Amino acid sequence: MSEPVAPRAPRRGRPGHDQETVLRRAIDLFNEQGYDGTSMGDLARELGFTKSAIYHHVPSKSHLLEQALDEALDALTAVIEEAASATSEQSAYARLRLAVRQSVEVLVAHLPAVTLLLRVRGNSDIELNALRRRRAIDDRLAALVAEAVAEGSLRGDLPPDLVSRLLFGMVNSLVEWYRPGGAVDAAMLSKAITTMAFDGLALHETGPGDTGTPPA
Amino acid sequence: MSEPVAPRAPRRGRPGHDQETVLRRAIDLFNEQGYDGTSMGDLARELGFTKSAIYHHVPSKSHLLEQALDEALDALTAVIEEAASATSEQSAYARLRLAVRQSVEVLVAHLPAVTLLLRVRGNSDIELNALRRRRAIDDRLAALVAEAVAEGSLRGDLPPDLVSRLLFGMVNSLVEWYRPGGAVDAAMLSKAITTMAFDGLALHETGPGDTGTPPA
Repeated sequence: MSEPVAPRAPRRGRPGHDQETVLRRAIDLFNEQGYDGTSMGDLARELGFTKSAIYHHVPSKSHLLEQALDEALDALTAVIEEAASATSEQSAYARLRLAVRQSVEVLVAHLPAVTLLLRVRGNSDIELNALRRRRAIDDRLAALVAEAVAEGSLRGDLPPDLVSRLLFGMVNSLVEWYRPGGAVDAAMLSKAITTMAFDGLALHETGPGDTGTPPA
Repeated sequence: MSEPVAPRAPRRGRPGHDQETVLRRAIDLFNEQGYDGTSMGDLARELGFTKSAIYHHVPSKSHLLEQALDEALDALTAVIEEAASATSEQSAYARLRLAVRQSVEVLVAHLPAVTLLLRVRGNSDIELNALRRRRAIDDRLAALVAEAVAEGSLRGDLPPDLVSRLLFGMVNSLVEWYRPGGAVDAAMLSKAITTMAFDGLALHETGPGDTGTPPA
């Protein structure tokens, strides 16, 4: 996968942008205005192209959407395929914890593309295909949670599907507020999410700290 | 707050609906088509009114949006005000855990209104006001997390603001997939979220289960 362009590049560019820059601008516009609310004319204006010149760079709007969704899905699929690998010598618990940590890293590195992916509702074949790929990732994560429960390293009193949804619901919620360059860096994010989810926030070892717990 | 109407009411109704039914249908349409993508004509058609008759029931589209956002915000504010109450004899930890549990209950009970609230981006004074109320809730939750850290019942190695965001990011992620009447009920949801967040998923007491943990 090619590297993202520098985030501080000027928004009004000159003709001569490479395809990567066109894709970055398209993803930003789709996130700001919605995919349906963005025309190729909007994108051309954003890049300083004429409306006809934009087609020298990209065949269609849906092609850009597909590239963006593939960017996010390829990165997330790579994480889960490594984590779900049966040939790994690591425990299912260690692989699950690693998958959560690496998913956070993928979200931070590909924030605009993942943001777009999480908004997809299935309005076209490209979107339906993206939803299928998301479901395949979710299924493998749920299976990994079940594997960690089966090996005795993860609590078994919660349904694995629900645990998987909540775990990655927490990870995905980053796109609502996380902005690179802010007070929280990717390492702190990963630490906070994995620590909260696996170790818990309560300091049970202090003794009576949990006595006020309401019945669940 | 008035009770929501039965979710299985027919979608194509006859004239004579009360205001509560009009509001429920409006919220559903806003969530399905977007607020900007929904006209009063759409709502009239959905309810079986003529386009002019709808104004006998509601003054404007923005009035419906405001009522919907207030429904969600009033319920969430009530939860956090109780939890943040300094006169409570409960520990900050117990109040925070209760706030998480009750927030889940609010989301389940007011799912369409909360879904609408979480999509608000600040496109009007009504939306900006809703965002202000959301921020006030977030601030009080972050303060409650800090209070629990200060009393020694919550781990202090993670920034309270970040913990609060992730905790309620996990809670809010419910709107993406939770549907009443499915396999998971509200009690199981509350249990799963509070158990994961406060107690953690890892079974540390089994001993070597955590040895495979990658460095955070």
